[in-house]
This record gives sequence, structure tokens and C-alpha cells, in this order.
Amino acid sequence: MDSLTITEVRLTPVLVADPPLLNTQGVHQPYTPRLIVEVVTEGGVAGLGETYGDTKYLDLARPLATALVGRTVTDLNGLPELAAQVCGESSAATGADAVDAGGLRGAQTAGKLRLSVVSGFEVACLDAWGRATGLPVHALLGGKVRDRVEYSAYLFYRWDAHPGGRGEPDDWGAALDPAGIVAQARRFADTYGFTSFKLKGGVFEPAQDIAAVRALAAAFPGRPLRIDPNGAWSVPTSLQVAHELRDVLEYLEDPVSGTARMAEVAAALKGTGRNPSGGGGGGRREGLPLATNMCVTSFDEIPEAFTRDAVQVVLCDHHYWGGLHRTRELAAICRTFGVGLSLHSNTHLGISLAAMTQVAATVPRLDHACDTHYPWQTEDVLTERHTFRDGRLAVGDAPGLGIDLDRDRLAALHRRWLEDDGGYRSRDDAAAMRVADPGWVKPTVPRW
Amino acid sequence: MDSLTITEVRLTPVLVADPPLLNTQGVHQPYTPRLIVEVVTEGGVAGLGETYGDTKYLDLARPLATALVGRTVTDLNGLPELAAQVCGESSAATGADAVDAGGLRGAQTAGKLRLSVVSGFEVACLDAWGRATGLPVHALLGGKVRDRVEYSAYLFYRWDAHPGGRGEPDDWGAALDPAGIVAQARRFADTYGFTSFKLKGGVFEPAQDIAAVRALAAAFPGRPLRIDPNGAWSVPTSLQVAHELRDVLEYLEDPVSGTARMAEVAAALKGTGRNPSGGGGGGRREGLPLATNMCVTSFDEIPEAFTRDAVQVVLCDHHYWGGLHRTRELAAICRTFGVGLSLHSNTHLGISLAAMTQVAATVPRLDHACDTHYPWQTEDVLTERHTFRDGRLAVGDAPGLGIDLDRDRLAALHRRWLEDDGGYRSRDDAAAMRVADPGWVKPTVPRW
Repeated sequence: MDSLTITEVRLTPVLVADPPLLNTQGVHQPYTPRLIVEVVTEGGVAGLGETYGDTKYLDLARPLATALVGRTVTDLNGLPELAAQVCGESSAATGADAVDAGGLRGAQTAGKLRLSVVSGFEVACLDAWGRATGLPVHALLGGKVRDRVEYSAYLFYRWDAHPGGRGEPDDWGAALDPAGIVAQARRFADTYGFTSFKLKGGVFEPAQDIAAVRALAAAFPGRPLRIDPNGAWSVPTSLQVAHELRDVLEYLEDPVSGTARMAEVAAALKGTGRNPSGGGGGGRREGLPLATNMCVTSFDEIPEAFTRDAVQVVLCDHHYWGGLHRTRELAAICRTFGVGLSLHSNTHLGISLAAMTQVAATVPRLDHACDTHYPWQTEDVLTERHTFRDGRLAVGDAPGLGIDLDRDRLAALHRRWLEDDGGYRSRDDAAAMRVADPGWVKPTVPRW
Repeated sequence: MDSLTITEVRLTPVLVADPPLLNTQGVHQPYTPRLIVEVVTEGGVAGLGETYGDTKYLDLARPLATALVGRTVTDLNGLPELAAQVCGESSAATGADAVDAGGLRGAQTAGKLRLSVVSGFEVACLDAWGRATGLPVHALLGGKVRDRVEYSAYLFYRWDAHPGGRGEPDDWGAALDPAGIVAQARRFADTYGFTSFKLKGGVFEPAQDIAAVRALAAAFPGRPLRIDPNGAWSVPTSLQVAHELRDVLEYLEDPVSGTARMAEVAAALKGTGRNPSGGGGGGRREGLPLATNMCVTSFDEIPEAFTRDAVQVVLCDHHYWGGLHRTRELAAICRTFGVGLSLHSNTHLGISLAAMTQVAATVPRLDHACDTHYPWQTEDVLTERHTFRDGRLAVGDAPGLGIDLDRDRLAALHRRWLEDDGGYRSRDDAAAMRVADPGWVKPTVPRW
């Protein structure tokens, strides 16, 4: 099928607005880099993909884009090996082994960076293939098993505006205490219909996180709640928080850093929790489940974590894992070992949200509402934004990802990248924090 | 894409000739049942699938065939659930829970039977989809990562002819001792180019199996050898055989029955074997690896077996596992846990061999030459038989499975099924043995 041969791959780095959202390591930059991938086929269709846009990812994406020309968009299983071949030197040049991008996605290796880049190309190939044959991406993954995918509200402590007046203004206002978090949750619930809530914790001391979750529980009785301090806590602190919140938490996300400490917390939590029958953890165990998108972000981290029962829910970021096919493989592993699965999200645009929704629709067991950072992104490169209804996105049957690129918006966001004078081409939450607090250094963990 | 909607599903049970091959439970029948599935789309293409044809499978296939009409051929992830819904009563009616078909494929449940049926439909859907869009099945699974798939010679103790003059004659002659096995292997090597050899053991006492493998090692020095007694041995016997053959065996297949005993044998074998660096077992461990297509034949059997390190190679029969997508999921699990993967084969036709070859081509790591029973099948329903060269099958890029149905052959083999007067519609190797030895009862394990 010649029309599926790739004739051109376009890479467009962009900077997209991000609100001043706080986490344990700092604050989101006013603008964050993303990379938009277009895979163009001989038949004339262009498939869309998206991935992290930091310079180190871009350095890997360029040789891979060149290497893709002449292959076909169905040739996906070979992409990781191809990336290993053509990106090898580039990734070595970035010194990416064991680096830590933002510290929010666990240990980072050259292999993980490569897979994140691969994911953008894999999604673009699937989109192109679907457009060319009139099939939705979910069909190319074996077909959807649900018509809607549920998402969760993603609550952040935040400032009213970025320091120094940078960035794009919004009308959310500051949220720096439990009342602010509840107000934010209320707006999310009213606007999008979300019925479960995740709080990005670890910004303030644990007592405030506990108070905020308690306030959410009071405001939304019976709703699934989650808190994620990005590994900022010690084992004793994690157990104390778990003890205080076990009756209202759906799961506790990355309370500590690393598989060993997660295993220690998990062992101590057996028999506790909101779902003592184990409903939250895939049915395998009793107790408040631990979720992660930090200590298990690649296949080689699975055996130790699963055999030690260190995590009960894996929050898959399809970028980290290398694309939608590999996300489905992760889902199969989780299903087999009785570990729950949900999807992770951080600052990304509508292309990746479409990809998440398509793959989530194909997974036979999806145990928890997926994360979505998307409502915080007021900018997109699509002609039409995704719309959450009842906290869910519909899984369309339009060809490919069912989205269209707004070339003017893409050009504008690319221009911002070209003209960047703020050092935003690589995300650095600690650097962004230093704009407000020049003495800020990224906290070591455990912070509390 | 309306043209991919299923308008008709044709089920054609057939009886195909099988030579008098011996195993620990009896002898192959002169004819064995298979089920040929044709999925016809609105666009007018017919996709081919094949699965076990015993009556209990046929009973499950009929309601599923009816339920498929109106769905699309891309809708594969939902097939197991659909089968669970529509086949539920039928499978209960067969009393299939915990039955044991031939005793050669481990514990059998209604769920496993259903998945074997699903596999025939899944493959037929993939073939139809590929034919309709001009893509090979491997592309629909993410693309091939190799152009040829290696197979292994499958050696059997056998009689010259079926007792009572039934069945189709062949010119292989009897093989009832080491010299006969070596001659058989020589013919396989000369005719098809196979360079690895698997002996179906457990027919005679272990000393003869040891002698046969030793004779093979002498005749084919350095070639990978395997022996599979279908769980007929005790733990001590297995360890004794392993000790005697550890320098020539690539792996030992199902020496004992059940995960607990396999784990016991595996633990004792650590540090022994032909590949002390663990090359045979996926790199995870040292020692002679154990392979299985009996104690791990479904996803729910994986956690115990893998965490106990009971098996080092899973021999996947895509029928058992529910199709090609699920075979790829199994492959991902094996890869993740450092367990080797290869493909199992028993009496089947060229449709299933094409399916095996297509999926095997897509798996990033395929650790061992796949089993193939196909050379023993002198009959097929294809217009052109598969041809092994250098022990390998080429992975074609023709649409779908790249095969065509010979309707005359299909009709002839179906006629044999319709006119069956030998009780061959359900395979029963012990019953076939009783034709020669009226007092034969299926041996209990361990037999030795």
C-alpha cells in the first residue's frame, strides 16, 4: 500500500502557556515546550503526534524524523529499535543517562527519553494510517471497549499570576489553602462534570495537604480523592497521612520516592483504606492502594515493583512508555498481575489528549478515572478543543485521532518558541520558582 | 468504514489426516477435527481463521458466529467479552470447566475453551481487514520486525500406519527407537532445513528418551535440542534426565505437571545447563531452562509461575491465548519478566501456520525457533502449501494472511467430517490407542 509510505516528517517545537501551578520542586513556567509531529504520507495525509518538547527531546526527534522517511506508517513495532540506532549518539551527547527532568517522572535514562520521542511519532503514524483508511485510531488498536473515557479533576495549589508579570493571565485566582482548593474543585466539577479529584500535594507541609483533602471530602462526600506529593514524604510521614486520610482516598500517589520505599509503605498499608476489599488496587490485595507515575515508568521497572507489591496502580503516561501499542502492553501486564491502571497527564495539548482517550477506550479494564491536565491549557493547536461532559470525553469514530490542526495557532506558538527569551525551551520548575524566590533550590526528598 | 462490517460468518468443521504419532497419553487419531472460520464483510472479502474443531469448541463457535454479524472486523478487543456473553450457556452445557482435552494442554476451563474459539474469529477478522485494505496481518499488529520466522523440527515416535488400516498412508515409516528418531530428524533437516529439533517424549521410559536425544546430539552436534514428555515425569526423574542431557538441551519442556512441580525442578536446575549464562531463559537466570505449553496457558496462570520462576520459556499457542493481539500481550509480559517466548504447535492447517508466522514476525524478541507440526499434515485447505526453506517461513507482505482457500479441498474435508463414522469429531488420543491396545487407559502422571 504505497499511499502509506512516509514522505516527510515535520517537527514543530512550540511554547504553550501554563499557569503558575505549584509542586514540591517549584512552579510551572509561564510557557512550557512541546513538540508537534506531523507525519506526511505519499497518499497526502498528515498524521499528528505530540510529545515533550524540551531541547533534549528535540535533539533526539530530529534524527528519528529523518530516518522515518521511506518507511510506512504501519511499521510501529520497529520504532524503538530504530530510535536506538539513529538517536544513539544524540542521546549520549545530551548526557541523558540518569538525568532527572524536573524530578517529577522518576529516574530518567537515555532509553526513556527516546521512548518519549518515539511516542510522538507512533501516534502521528497511527493518525495518518487512520486518516488514510477511514478508521479511528482505537480501531487500529483492536477497537474500543467503551464509548466514553472518564477523567479526574487535577487540583493544584497555585498563584494568581506568574511572578514578574510573565505568561498568559487567567481568571482562576490563587489557591493556597484548603478553601482555595475546594473552590477550584467546585469550578472543575461545575464546568466539566468531574466527579473525582486529584490534589497535587507536597507543596506545603503534610498537615495542610491533609486539611485540603479533608475539606474536599467534606465538600464532595463519597467522591474518589487522590493526593500526589511527587515523592516528597518520608515513609513515616506517608503512613501518617495515609492513616489520617484512609477513609476518603481512592489511592495515594507516589508518597515516597523509589520502589523500596513504596514497597515499605504499601506493606504497612495492607488491610487499611477506603476499599478494604481491594477494589482500588485491581482486586489483588486489601488496603489503601499506592499509585505511581514515578517509580514505574518503564518495563524494566515492573518486575521488582510488582513482585514486591510496591504499587497497586500504574498511572501510564503514553509518552514515557513509548506510545499507544506499548501502553496496551502495559495494560495487559497490569491486568495479569492484578495491578490497577490509569493514565497520567501533565502539561500537554489536545493531540496527546486525543491519543490518551483513544488508547484508554481500548483497554479492557480501566480501573480509575484518568488524570487530565488539559483544562489548565488554555492554548491548543487544534481547530476545536476537547470538551469534557460529565467528566468524560466521548470516544469518536472519526478517522485517525479525530482532530484537526489549526496551522495559524501552531505557527503562533512556534513563533513564541523561536523568539523565546525566557529560557523556557526546557522545562525547569525550580528555575521558574527562583524568579519569585532567588534562593530556591530544588528540595531533596524526603522533604517531610 | 462500512465495507468492514461483517455480514456473514461461515463455520466449516473438517477432519484432517494425522499420522499415527505417539505421545504419553496415546496416539493421534487417523483424523483430527479442525474448524475453519470465514468472516465475510459487506465489502465482499472473506477472512480466514482456524481453531480446534472438537465438538465442544464447535458448540461455542456457533453462537459467537451469529453474534459477530453486524460488527466490524476491527472490533477485536471486545471479542473475549462478547464470547463470554453469548457462549456462556453453551460452555456450561458442555461441562467444560476443569475438563482436560487430551491432557496435553494443561488444566482446561470454560474460559480457555472460549478463548480458543475467539482466536479463530480474531484471525479471520484480521485477515478480512488486511484483504480489504491491502495490508498484511503483521502490519495490522504494528509491523514485522523480521522477514523470516524460524521453526524447529517436531520429532515423534510413531507407527508405520494407523491400526486397522484407517487413515491416510504416508512414507515415513515407523520410528520407535533412537535410530528411527535420528532418521526422522535427518529427513526433516534435508527436506525443510530445520536446524533445531524437538522430540515428543514420554512414550517410552526415560532411558530411551535420553538415548534418543543423545543420538540426535551425536548426529547433529551443537544443534539446539528439546524434549517434551507432556508432564509424564516425576521431579526426581526430570532432574535425572536434565542431568544426563544438560549439555545438549536448549530447554526441557513440561517434564512435570503443574506449576508447583515445575518450580521445584527449575529451582534444582539453577546453575546447570547448556546456557549457563541464561541465554535460553531470556537472560534472567542461569541453568537449563524449563519451557511450557501446559502449566502456563492463560494470563491468570502467569503471576504464580513467573514469580516462582517455575518456567523460563512460554510456548504460546495463539489459539489457547485468544488470538494474535493477546499473543503479543503475552510476549510483552514475557519480555518484561525476562521469560523466553516461542510458539507452540499441534495438529493444525496452513491458516493457523500463517497466523503464527505473522504474529511471530511482530514480536521484538523471539528467543527460540517456533514449534511446527505442519509437516505432518499432508492435507490442507489452501491453494498453496507453506514451504519451509532453511527451516524458516518467509513473512509475506500480501494482504491479510497471504493465503487462499481451496474450496474443493475444504468441501472434501468437510464431507469427511459429515460422514465420520470413527468417532473422530472430538480428539481422543487414548481412545485411538485402544484400537491397537484395548486395555489402554490414559496413564496418570507422573508416569515415570
